[in-house]
Amino acid sequence: MSDLTTLEGTLGQVWQRLARGVADRRSPARHPVLATVGRGGGAEARTVVLRGVDAAAGALTFHTDLASAKVAEIAAEPRGTVLIWDAKAQLQMRLRVVLAVRNGTQAEWAAVPEGAQRVYGGTPAPGAEIARPDAHDPAPDPTRFAVVTAQVDAIETLHLGQDRHRRALFRRADGFRGVWLAP
Amino acid sequence: MSDLTTLEGTLGQVWQRLARGVADRRSPARHPVLATVGRGGGAEARTVVLRGVDAAAGALTFHTDLASAKVAEIAAEPRGTVLIWDAKAQLQMRLRVVLAVRNGTQAEWAAVPEGAQRVYGGTPAPGAEIARPDAHDPAPDPTRFAVVTAQVDAIETLHLGQDRHRRALFRRADGFRGVWLAP
Repeated sequence: MSDLTTLEGTLGQVWQRLARGVADRRSPARHPVLATVGRGGGAEARTVVLRGVDAAAGALTFHTDLASAKVAEIAAEPRGTVLIWDAKAQLQMRLRVVLAVRNGTQAEWAAVPEGAQRVYGGTPAPGAEIARPDAHDPAPDPTRFAVVTAQVDAIETLHLGQDRHRRALFRRADGFRGVWLAP
Repeated sequence: MSDLTTLEGTLGQVWQRLARGVADRRSPARHPVLATVGRGGGAEARTVVLRGVDAAAGALTFHTDLASAKVAEIAAEPRGTVLIWDAKAQLQMRLRVVLAVRNGTQAEWAAVPEGAQRVYGGTPAPGAEIARPDAHDPAPDPTRFAVVTAQVDAIETLHLGQDRHRRALFRRADGFRGVWLAP
């Protein structure tokens, strides 16, 4: 049973739903939005695929192409937000994170399905202008395969309950104990 | 028929889907993510409700509470991103926007359903710490009702087609003519 009326229950729900996102392709947490600060100064956002969750460490992982814009954005400003809206639960999860990018290991690369490997690599690099959609050679390249780790600094939830809206904030700084906020 | 294999068709699809978001509560464009730069410097994101679309002007509108954090964030850095992921169409729409906030008019306030008016106003202000979820008085307040306009500066699409991924960029600066990008 979901319990979104208590702080402890709410935090438990967040980590449960994140874990489901890794395991289940159809879960809302499978495709969070990752917001970063663009190199020009404004905010950027894109959908990503949640690849790993470590509740004990309070961390998430994603995969990316080292040549993608978000890698340069993270290098310049590592503080971003991971956002998930779970329509069925009427629960918004906002995770304020500190991002870091590292090269994927050989074992991590080997675990990527062959069809998905072609997403990492290719010429020209992601975002370069091309004449036609097929003017791109998607050669898989393990040296372009990168792992983004997101250390969760704070979790803010908003539950649109039938009786009322409940908003809560859980900060790493106080052990994710949690406080209620005005919605 | 949707045509996501041409630039013109892709742009048409974006505006069609945005218009559907205003008209249809169940459409994916009904609940975009709005990313902004936080007052502390990192990126923030939250789900919003799409209230208006003006394809001719290239602009969207949302509603908010003047006391919400995003109002202060927009005042400090108006460049944000509106993101929509349409799972059925396998189409990601990233709209780079310039945001502005103004007071809602009396007519706009009157058009907000009574049940929804309680979202604007209330004591304490959104985000303030409270002892319990019910320690909040949701008094509707027309002076706190604000309209956020988002002028679309660029639209970036990513279509995960069965044959290939197609990424395109449409810039206001060149009349939203559109170019293909490497995915």
